[in-house]
Formats: sequence, C-alpha cells, structure tokens
Amino acid sequence: DEIRRLHSYPEDSAGQIMTEDFVEVFPTATMAEVLAIIRDASEEEFETVNYVYVLSEDRHLLGVFSLRRMLRTPAEVLARDIMNADPVSVPVETKEEEVARILARYGFAAIPILDLRGRMVGIVTADDAQEVLEEAQTEDVLAFGGVVGDAEAYLSLSIWQLVKRRLPWLLILFVAEFFTGNVLRYYTNTSEKGGDTLLAQLMLFVPLLIGAGGNAGSQVTTTITRALALGEVTARDWLLVIRRELAVSSLVGFTLGFLGFIRAAIPGPIGWGQPVSLSLVVGMALPCIVIWAATVGSLLPIGAKGAGQDPAVMSAPFISTFVDATGLIIYFEVARRVLGAYGLSF
Amino acid sequence: DEIRRLHSYPEDSAGQIMTEDFVEVFPTATMAEVLAIIRDASEEEFETVNYVYVLSEDRHLLGVFSLRRMLRTPAEVLARDIMNADPVSVPVETKEEEVARILARYGFAAIPILDLRGRMVGIVTADDAQEVLEEAQTEDVLAFGGVVGDAEAYLSLSIWQLVKRRLPWLLILFVAEFFTGNVLRYYTNTSEKGGDTLLAQLMLFVPLLIGAGGNAGSQVTTTITRALALGEVTARDWLLVIRRELAVSSLVGFTLGFLGFIRAAIPGPIGWGQPVSLSLVVGMALPCIVIWAATVGSLLPIGAKGAGQDPAVMSAPFISTFVDATGLIIYFEVARRVLGAYGLSF
Repeated sequence: DEIRRLHSYPEDSAGQIMTEDFVEVFPTATMAEVLAIIRDASEEEFETVNYVYVLSEDRHLLGVFSLRRMLRTPAEVLARDIMNADPVSVPVETKEEEVARILARYGFAAIPILDLRGRMVGIVTADDAQEVLEEAQTEDVLAFGGVVGDAEAYLSLSIWQLVKRRLPWLLILFVAEFFTGNVLRYYTNTSEKGGDTLLAQLMLFVPLLIGAGGNAGSQVTTTITRALALGEVTARDWLLVIRRELAVSSLVGFTLGFLGFIRAAIPGPIGWGQPVSLSLVVGMALPCIVIWAATVGSLLPIGAKGAGQDPAVMSAPFISTFVDATGLIIYFEVARRVLGAYGLSF
Repeated sequence: DEIRRLHSYPEDSAGQIMTEDFVEVFPTATMAEVLAIIRDASEEEFETVNYVYVLSEDRHLLGVFSLRRMLRTPAEVLARDIMNADPVSVPVETKEEEVARILARYGFAAIPILDLRGRMVGIVTADDAQEVLEEAQTEDVLAFGGVVGDAEAYLSLSIWQLVKRRLPWLLILFVAEFFTGNVLRYYTNTSEKGGDTLLAQLMLFVPLLIGAGGNAGSQVTTTITRALALGEVTARDWLLVIRRELAVSSLVGFTLGFLGFIRAAIPGPIGWGQPVSLSLVVGMALPCIVIWAATVGSLLPIGAKGAGQDPAVMSAPFISTFVDATGLIIYFEVARRVLGAYGLSF
C-alpha cells in the first residue's frame, strides 16, 4: 500500500525515496506521553526514530526534537516547549539528489517531507540519501568517462546494455574526429610543391601535440567538474576560474614547449635532430595548444552548469576530441607563420 | 588534550578521526542508571549518543545497544541483558578510509575503536566517515584525470600548487607521447620510394584512429575503475571482465570499423573518396585498435588493484597515451598487410 502510494510521486523525487514511518506527536504531548508513543510504535516506525515530529491537527509540521534531547527532558514538559520550531523540510516533489545534498549539508539523520499543501507525509533518512548520492556520483563518473546510463552494477549489465551505454558517445566523437582528419586534409591539399617533405615532418609531431592538449584538457576538466560538483566553485566564478587556469596552463605550456623544443632539436638517440625552424614550431605550438585546452576544459563544464546541465556531460573524451581538431588548426597556423619567418612554406 | 592524544596516532588512521566522547556503562547497569548517565553526560558526549557501549572494568568492549532500544526497555533491565554482544569494532591503527567503508557497509551511526590491547578508546561517527569518503573519492576522481594530490578545495590552492599537481603526469605522458612520434618516424623512414603518397594518405587517418582508441579505452577504464571502487568486481574477476570487455569492444569496434570504411570510401562531401584498399585499412584497423584499447583499459586498472595500488592511477590520460603509440603500430601493420594484398606498399 505504501509502495503503491510512493510510486505515484514523480520519478526521482523525494516522494519515491521517503518512508512514511515516523513518530509524530501533538504539541501538547508531555514527554511521558511521547515516550509511551515511541514504546507503542510499530517496528517500522521505531526503526527510523531519531527525531520526533510535532504536527498540528491538520498535519502541518510545527517543530521537531531529537530522541537525545527528549532523554534529558523531565517527563512533564510539553513537546511544544522543547521542539525546534520551523525545522528544515523539503517539498515531496524535490529531486531526490537535491534532498540528499540538503541532508548531507545539515548533517541531519533525517529530513521531513511535505506535500503540496504543506502537510507532512514522510521523512528521508540519511541512509537512503547516502545511496542516492553514491548513485549520482557513479553516474557522474561514468558520464565523465563518456559512458551513458544509470548507476547499475557492472556485472548486472548484459553485453548489449554495455554496448548501448558506450556506442552513443563513441559515434558522436567518431564523427567529430573525422573533422580532425578534414583539418589535416586541408593543410595537405593546400601544400605547395616542394613543401611535401616539410609537411611530412610536421605530421610526425601531430600525436605529440594533440596528446598533450588532450591530457592537459582532461586535467582541467576533471578539476573544474569536481569543484563544481562539490560546490567549491559556481558558474558565476567563471572569470576567476579562467584567470587561474590561464596562469596555470601558461606555466605548464611553456614548460612543455621548452622541453619539446629541446627534444626536437637535439640529435638522436635522445632527440630527433630536427632543424631549429621545425623545433621552434613544436616549442611554440605546445603552449598555445595547452592554453587553448585549459580554456576549453574549464569554460565548457562551467557553461554546461550555467545552462542548467550536468557539467559531467562535458566528458574527458569530448574535451580531448574537441581539442584534437582545434589544436591541429593552431599547430598548422603556428607552423605557417614560424616557417614563413624562415622563408619556408609547406 | 584530546587533540594532542589523537595526533599521536598514525597519519590517516582511525585514531585521527575518532572522538573520545561516548557513553559507556558497566554490564550490570540498569536502564534507569543508564538514563541517569546519559542525563549527566557532558554536552560533547551527549552530542554523539546514538549507542551506549557496555565495557568491562578493564575497558574491553562487551556489547552495545541503541538509544532507541533503551527506550523500549523497562527501567529495571540490566545492560548486559539487552546488549548486542561482540559488536563490530576496528583497531585504532586502521586506515580512516577503511573505517569509513566498514561504517557505510553496515549503515551504523558510529563504530567503536579499540587500542592495540583491545580496550575501547573512542568512536568514529558516520558524519566524520562521510567526510573521509568524500575526500577519498575526490582524490580518486582527480587521480583518474591525471591530477596528483590531496582533496583540497580548488580555490584554496595557489597557482603554483595547481601546477605541481598537473605537471608530473603531463611530463610523463609527454615523454611517452614522443614514443608515438617514434612509431610514425619508423614507418616514415622505412617507407619506399613511390610509397610517399600512400603514407601521406595513411597519416590523415591517424587522429581518427588514435582518438577512437583513446575514447574507447577511457570508457572501459572509467567503468572498471568505478566497479572496483564500489567493490562490484575484484582483481580475481579479471577473466570474467576481460571476456565481457572483448565481447563489448568487438561489437563496438566492428560498428566503428564498418562506419569508418563507408565514410572513407564514399565520395565527398560526406565521404573522403578513398580507394577501397585504403578504406579497408581504416575499417579493419579500427576494430583491432578498439579491442586492444578495451584490453588495456580493463587489465591495467585490475592489475593495479591486484598489485595493491589504487586503480585510479591508471588514469584516463595514461590509457589514452598508451593506446596512441601501440594503436599506431597496429594501424601500420594492418596497413602493410591489407595494402600488400592489393600489391601496394608504402
């Protein structure tokens, strides 16, 4: 019966995870009477008793007190005299994740749930909230890795269900990655006669450059998405975040650029023995790509959050793929200018 | 005084997060006496009362009962007659994360902590355990994104601290990515006269192929690392996991391979109008790389776990970078064989 009633509430709402078993008393009940009510409570009600809720005759929540507080109160005192008035409560239609976060924030063992007319209909316990948060976290982690779906146990999913969770993003990214190929084709097709060898040399550094961009972008997105999830930063902090990320990625990017230049320029077996012109291209493209990746990797999750979306949809694979194509454009444009300064073209 | 004592326990141990404020009674105490003890308890002890602990004279833990249970018990009953004997407890040197997981698993509000001689010295509450778990989770998420360090709030870290958390992995991956370049150089240097054009065409698909491998690998690693963290799979399940992942990645890989072949073969503007030989290389290399990425992406975190390491050190960027270099070898070897069958070489 309770189960049927709970299912009539909106999906993923407080109504679906609450229990209707709680101990309620009138404001005029004495502690002795409250104790008698608890002693006579059903096993289900008793299992969830951490607080006693004080309701009016029309079932409006007037106050709450803890079992602990009751133990220190003399038997003749009235409920209304020890209760905390105006306790925190949430409407029954609130999203379960939101309820869980409120509970975690206040550190309560349970929180009262009110229907649309303000009457108390149940409580959500910290235990149940904990499960909701863990599932939400799992979904976030998976989403961030480019996996679609609910927090169901890995071994409980069929092969086909696993495929369905992974194929959507892989297909989207696959189509997007063809754009990366288009960028390469563009620079290949516009290459001049005699520039073929130079272009072939440039191609050798492509995995290094898009790899560095993807990795730097993943780090930034991971950091910012987590900070957003924990409420350490909000969408309104975007300017502060971007300023910090520009500073960090400049330091990181110039370090990688310097090492990339050295590695490309010095002779083998440690280095690649490239001419200074080409080594400069690598050394200068790296900071540009890393800074660009940090910009994309911080602004996209913040933008998603600002637009009311889950920032985790800006998954690490998505950021990597996005940086692949756009990073290549940066690389070839840097190459055009730097090599041009040496009177070279490709 | 308590603070100084708690600091003498090993770092990150239960001793550092426990409170010494708990309510203890002798086994011969009546409920009336227990109630009196609770009423007279200090505010600190009172704040954490969910359970009453029954100790022997030499402070060994004999049993426990809840405040709730006490309320339903007549005043003359003895503690030893209602207590749960042999309650779950943990040694004071246990890692705080381990304690938090035990608490979460049993759903207790608090867990007793014993010193090395088996005497009860404190309790860890669910609240404190929750914070520990959240920090551990943050560290895992960051590690997985290739960021080193503790779960400190993003805005509390200086630019320099952020750099120090990111540079180590970026440098390692940067050196590793040079190996990817070496793979490209190897196939370029061994390229025959007249094979240049073919090689240039092959190069255009490099970002597509290593991107697909990296994305597929990230999905698998995310899924398996999370399943390991939640205890849904253990290191001993490796054979089951690899069998499932081979099935899933075969389905995913052949789907991508088929689409890659079509896209490469059909004329523009949708396709790339490549000869059937080259399109076949792309179509056949894709499933091989995706299956390889899934193998690496599932076995590496399981292997790390089996070796007693945190599986999250096998970060998504690490798997991507690893698959970049090894995936390229697969690509060029497939190309050599498929193009060879057409009498072509590069």
